[in-house]
Formats: sequence, structure tokens, C-alpha cells
Amino acid sequence: MSPHPEVDVVVVGAGMAGLVCAHRLRRRGIGVLVLEACDRPGGRTVGAEVGGESVDLGGQFVGPGQDRVYALAAELGVATFPTYTAGSNVLETETGRLRPFRGMAPRLGPSTLLDVARARFRLDRLARDIDTETPWRSPDAAALDGQTLQSWIDRRVHTRGGRRFLTLACQAIWACEPSELSLLHALFSIKSAGSLSALTDFEGGAQQDRLAGGAHGLAARLAAGLDAGLLLNAPVRRIEQDDRGATVITEDGTAWRAGQVVVAVPPPLASRIAYQPPMPAGRDTLLQRLPMGSVLKCIATYPEPFWRTAGLSGAALSLRGPIALTADSSPQSGRCGVLIGFVNGATARDLTTRSEAGRRALLLDALSRLFGPPAGRPVAFAERNWTEEPFTRGAYAAVFPPGAWTGPGSALRAGVGRIHWAGTETSPRWYGYIEGAVQSGERTADAIIRTHRPRPPAPVR
Amino acid sequence: MSPHPEVDVVVVGAGMAGLVCAHRLRRRGIGVLVLEACDRPGGRTVGAEVGGESVDLGGQFVGPGQDRVYALAAELGVATFPTYTAGSNVLETETGRLRPFRGMAPRLGPSTLLDVARARFRLDRLARDIDTETPWRSPDAAALDGQTLQSWIDRRVHTRGGRRFLTLACQAIWACEPSELSLLHALFSIKSAGSLSALTDFEGGAQQDRLAGGAHGLAARLAAGLDAGLLLNAPVRRIEQDDRGATVITEDGTAWRAGQVVVAVPPPLASRIAYQPPMPAGRDTLLQRLPMGSVLKCIATYPEPFWRTAGLSGAALSLRGPIALTADSSPQSGRCGVLIGFVNGATARDLTTRSEAGRRALLLDALSRLFGPPAGRPVAFAERNWTEEPFTRGAYAAVFPPGAWTGPGSALRAGVGRIHWAGTETSPRWYGYIEGAVQSGERTADAIIRTHRPRPPAPVR
Repeated sequence: MSPHPEVDVVVVGAGMAGLVCAHRLRRRGIGVLVLEACDRPGGRTVGAEVGGESVDLGGQFVGPGQDRVYALAAELGVATFPTYTAGSNVLETETGRLRPFRGMAPRLGPSTLLDVARARFRLDRLARDIDTETPWRSPDAAALDGQTLQSWIDRRVHTRGGRRFLTLACQAIWACEPSELSLLHALFSIKSAGSLSALTDFEGGAQQDRLAGGAHGLAARLAAGLDAGLLLNAPVRRIEQDDRGATVITEDGTAWRAGQVVVAVPPPLASRIAYQPPMPAGRDTLLQRLPMGSVLKCIATYPEPFWRTAGLSGAALSLRGPIALTADSSPQSGRCGVLIGFVNGATARDLTTRSEAGRRALLLDALSRLFGPPAGRPVAFAERNWTEEPFTRGAYAAVFPPGAWTGPGSALRAGVGRIHWAGTETSPRWYGYIEGAVQSGERTADAIIRTHRPRPPAPVR
Repeated sequence: MSPHPEVDVVVVGAGMAGLVCAHRLRRRGIGVLVLEACDRPGGRTVGAEVGGESVDLGGQFVGPGQDRVYALAAELGVATFPTYTAGSNVLETETGRLRPFRGMAPRLGPSTLLDVARARFRLDRLARDIDTETPWRSPDAAALDGQTLQSWIDRRVHTRGGRRFLTLACQAIWACEPSELSLLHALFSIKSAGSLSALTDFEGGAQQDRLAGGAHGLAARLAAGLDAGLLLNAPVRRIEQDDRGATVITEDGTAWRAGQVVVAVPPPLASRIAYQPPMPAGRDTLLQRLPMGSVLKCIATYPEPFWRTAGLSGAALSLRGPIALTADSSPQSGRCGVLIGFVNGATARDLTTRSEAGRRALLLDALSRLFGPPAGRPVAFAERNWTEEPFTRGAYAAVFPPGAWTGPGSALRAGVGRIHWAGTETSPRWYGYIEGAVQSGERTADAIIRTHRPRPPAPVR
């Protein structure tokens, strides 16, 4: 084993939470080393060049109420601009019919529409009472956490179309099937954003704005500021704690000594680190219960945003699939057109078993059904299936199954010895969003700053 | 990294599945090395001396239909004998009243009893149609897997007492809360044993018989037969596959080359091994979704089985807790008395936060409420909280939450390259029992034997 370089704080994971935490600690003069498993910083935000355009293969949108990420963008000199939303959205029915619509109310037929509206209203009302700091203490928590969102839909939504639409909404919002999700967690997530429309909407919601050059630019700038304080290709495999500090050991056997450790990786990956002493039962039990959602994001670039001239916004929902939703992600200048599409839940996993060519054909076929034949002939095309990323293993975030919040849920944010937990999943506000990651990074840094005592200077020998 | 010793098959995990697999392979002349993380073989079967008696801190019962474990016991020269069941069982109500009863029908009041009987009948009937080989293809699988057992109880059980009793039954049978469990998985489990009474009963059920000297004796004998083919204290951290074989790397960096690998550890722990190439999305996604049940088992020994003279069987169910159920586990000779108690589900985790003395006092208090003051004064006392065991992390077995079987469920048993999966969780018969582990070990060995080609002799130099 290599010698033990020493640092105040080791941060495990250079996603937004880890980077923000490290950035904040450094500004206070606290020594930080960030260890990142991948060959790039950013975590669930990641950029690529597709057809000469810088695009986001991961998280990309921001919206009102996400104050910390707007502040961070301003601090780092990254401008924001509104997502393009002019024109009609499109809903594709299961049989492939296209129904244009404006705003967030697709044309579903009056009884279905009423059914969906009533369900949305009910979910918002139920969410109002959720305590996002301690969801397990919310009124009626046991009953809400004893059932899946599926069970709630089966009981509360009466039209076939309404059920299909709410299933699609669940897949779009949480990247999982309604059967996988605790009703309590769905409500917690709604409350953590403020309302259901805050989750689903472009204007006024979490998809309102974009970041110039891509959201991944935030991570790139934060990483650049860390210089040698960020080590890539350094998967952490083991964290040992003793009376005097912690030892963080990477894949290649390098051992880093630190006074405190911040683990800022998705819950399933936090459970794959070996801890000595072993994690307490509550924490370990919880992590066994927190799977990631499943999502594939694809990006197609075109010489121009041709759908705009046809009066379309580029936003679509499809009950037919495999792409569940799309959006216009063209650069602000409009010098070329970019469409993004999401394949969510079980369908995202199914697509991993196909050849790249077969998958691409399927995805482009889906886009051309929504926006016409030109959508099937992009200049360039890229996809990222987050279920296959070994150091993320899903997105957008962990989804709580029934019984997790009201069972071992209180272990989610509680530090264990010298180890703090960060990441969007630890945030009571904007859980699952970049904003949640930023808030968790700041909160964790502040907790460390409050208790930090500078090390005494080394004795002169 | 150390040099690469080479072997036909490396088995990861010396629980019953791994040991049986290795035993069977060796008999066919196939070279096997078993790597075990703990300092003992046995996995979820483990023995201890408590008050001079050899007792089981883990799995211990066998029953009709568990043909392979009876055959194994016979082969290894381990006798079986009936669990002591003469006399009255006891049900403790929530308010601490004791109600003796015979057989499996506690005195619950007529409407509650009818409610419970009806629920049992319905569960058995629903289970009949489950396809245990491919549960996701069972009739109505999506609907059954879209809800928790809790939702089913809420809908189908109408008395307060009935709901409480079924919650207790769930905790006793699956070591989890009804909120955590998919209805489909509960039905699969029932079908995999044959019926609900096969799961719950002593006589005629899975608790009918015991093994002389303890169930852990099976593992000890199998392990002894492996000689140097079993390595203890060797946690596997990484498995790499290439064109010519697999490399299995333990904590200390030793790398073992093998033609094939059998991973026979609980699902959450299989997910904590690093794989290269990374696991396919389906497999990884599934493992993120399979937590272990939570259980503490305690064992108290007495100079004699004093409850028998009071006309009690030693079996009890308690709605008050923390011990949910007990049984007489005295040696066949009756030379001393042994009671075992189980604390299941959330309560098992809660107990980990207490001091050992505080926990012991609580558990002995529970026993003395059930069997009188002498039960509170054992000669010796031991406990094992399986949620804290770093290389098991729960028991009896993994519990499928909603959406797992019908989502990525088909990845459970499918091998990945040179890696086979064993363990009771991979067994369509007697899932979660020692029998399931034995069957999975045999099945995996047979699959390897079918395709095994002896290596050519090394060239003479």
C-alpha cells in the first residue's frame, strides 16, 4: 500500500454535490481532495460535442426556485437563457396519432382530461402536508409509504387514458414505473420542488431555463478551480475510520488520510464502498433499498430547428414510445437545431440489450413520427444510457420504494463518524435535481466549516 | 498484485449454496476453490456454544418437501428429529394478554379469525397460479407486482385484529414489513414452498424437523471435505472476465484465475463486488432493488425445558414484541431447555441502536412475559442481529419490492459470461430456505458439469 498523503477533507465523487462542497471548503482555506471514479468531473451532468454543438448528455435544465444553481451559474460566469417553448407541443397516442396541444394540458378527451386534472390536484394537495426534512414524520406517513404510486393510480384514476397518462408522467418525472415508487416518495418529491407543475413545466417549472454552453460547464469550471485537488480515474473502494482520522483507499491501493470524508455519490454506489468499521444496520439497510431510476437520453442535431417553422415547440409526450418525452435543446443562437429525447423506466433497460444501430433506428423512428421525416435524418446523434454507467448506474436519482422512508429513512442524511453524505438524494429541497445536489454540497460544506479546527502546525524537529 | 494461481471454478461464498456447489463439482473431479469473506463457513447457518449447547444462530429448521437438504443430511451422516411441539402455543396480544392455542389457529375472536382464515385462503389461491420459474410471466403479474402486501391487506382484511395478525405473519415469514414486500413476491414465496402453511407450520411445514447438532453442522462437514479448497477471511472485491478466463481478486489483492466463477452470496453483497466488464444494466438494476429482510435471533438456555411441564410447546407469537415469535429449540435428549426468539423487520433494526445490556433486558423481559419469570433467568444467552453482519447484511433472504420481478426480474438467474449466480434467492423452489440454497448449489454445479471440458495436460517442457 502506498504512503498516506494527508488532507483535511476527502470528497468522494466529483458530481455537482462533491464539487460544490469542495469549492466552498477551499474558499474557507480547508484542504480538500476530490476523488472521482470517472475520467471526467460532473457526475450526472456531462457534456459532449454532437454535430459541432456542445450538448448535455445528462442534467441540463434549471427553473424558478432553484436559487443556488442560478447563484452558482452567476458566480461562475455562466449565463442562463429560456428553453424554447413557442408553438405547439405534441402528444402521440398509443396508436400513433399526433395531437398538438398548448401548455401542459394535452388533448386527451374530456373525461380523461378531467381525470388527470383531478389526480394532479389530489397529488398536489397530499404533497402539501409532507415534511421534507423528515418525510417519515409526515401525517399519515405509514399509509402513504405502504403503497406504490401504481396502487394510488389504480384507486384514484378511473379512465384508461388517465392511467396511461399518469404512468407516462411518472416515467417522465421519476424515470421509473409507478409500481416501483412509494406514494410517499412521489409526494415528497413534489413537495421538495414545490408542486407537481414545478416538476413538469417548462415556463415556471424546472425546465424553464438552460445554461449557456450546457449545464456540464458548471462542473467543468468548478473542477478547473480545484486544480490538483481533483483526482480523476480514482474509484474509492474502501473507507476506514479510526480514532484520529479516516483512510480513503482507491482502486489502485492508494490510501489518503483525512480528518473528514464527504461521500457524494448516488446511494447504490455509496453502498458498494467497503467501510471499516462496517456501516450501522440502519444506514446499510436503507442503501439496500434505494435503486436509481432508469433513463436513456438521446440527442439529435439538425442543420436548423425545422420543427419551429412548422409551428412546433419540439416538446412532445409519447404514449407509444420508446421515447417518452422530447424537448428543443437548440443553442440559444438558433444556428442549428437540437432535439433531446428521453426513454424512461423499464424501456430504458430493455434498449440496452439491442445493438447500437438497432437502438438508433428505433429512436430516430420515434423522433420522425413526432416531428416528421427530417427528424429521422440528423446531422449527428448521441445517446447516453445511464443504467449502464458503472459509476452512476441510473438517473435521474434514487427512487424510494414503499417502506423505505418510514423504515430506515432517517439514516439517509445522518453522518457516520467522520463521514458525511452529500448528493441530490440527501437534499430536502429539489431532490433529484442539480439544485438539490448544489444545496447538499453547500449544506455539507457548512457543517464541516462549523466544526473545523485548523490542524496545529507540524512540530519543528 | 500476487501471482495467479489457477483453478477450474472459483466459488464466491461458503454458505450452503456455495459449499454444496463446490462439493458436487469436486466429486466430478472439477477443481474448485471457495473464497469466503468470514472467518467461518456456513453463511446464514452458523453455530455457537450457548450454555454448553451447540445451537444455531441462523437457519435451523427443515420440513417436508425439502428433499435435497434431507438427502444431504443423510449423505453427511447428520440425523434429523422432530421439533418439539407438544402442548399449547401462546399468542400475546398487544396489551400483553396471553392466549394459549393449539395448532396454527390462534384465539383471535371469531370475526378476526374468519378474516385471517379468508386472507390465508385467498393468498394460497392467488399463489397457485404463480410461475416460480418466471414469476413475471404469471397471470396478472403486473397488477400483483404493482402493489405491496400492505395494500392487499388494507383492501382484503377488514378487522383491525386481522390486519395486525397478518402484519405479524409477514414479519415472521419474510422478516420485513408488509409495506416493503411486493404482493407478487409474497405469492411467489408461498408457491415456492407449496402453500402458506408449508411456510408457517411446524408439523407438516418448514419448521417440522431439526438437524442433530444443528444445521450449521452441514456446512461444517461440507467445508471439512473441501480441505485446502476453502479459503476463509478472503472477501472478494473484484471479478474480471476476459477471453480466456476470469480473475477473482480478494481484499488483500490476491488474484485467482478460473475458467468459471460461481457467485453464491446474498444479492446486495453480489452488487458490492466490482465487475470488469461492468454488469449489464438489467442485472445491476435488479440488484439495486433486492434488499435483505431484517432479523435478530436470540437464544436462551435453561437447566431444563420448564415450559413443557407447564403444558406449553415453547412456540409463541407476540403482537406486543419486540420478540415476534419463539420456538422450543432444546436438544433432542431434553437434557436442557433452549428457547429461540425472533425479532423481525423494522424492530430488528431499531434494536441495533441499544446497548447490549439494554437489548438483552428487553428480550428476556419479552420471554418472561410469554413463559413466566424463569424464562427471564437463562443459564446463557446469545443473539445474532443479521442486519449487522457485514457479509450477510440481513436475513432470512432478499425481499422483492414492487416492480422488481416484473421489471428487471429475469436477470436474477441469468449467468453473465463466465459468472453463474447461486444462493437461495436464485431458487424457484424454497426461496429463502436452506433447501433453496442447496437446490441452487446443485443446479449451478450441474450447469457447470454439463459444459466442463477438462483442461489439456500441461505440455512437457
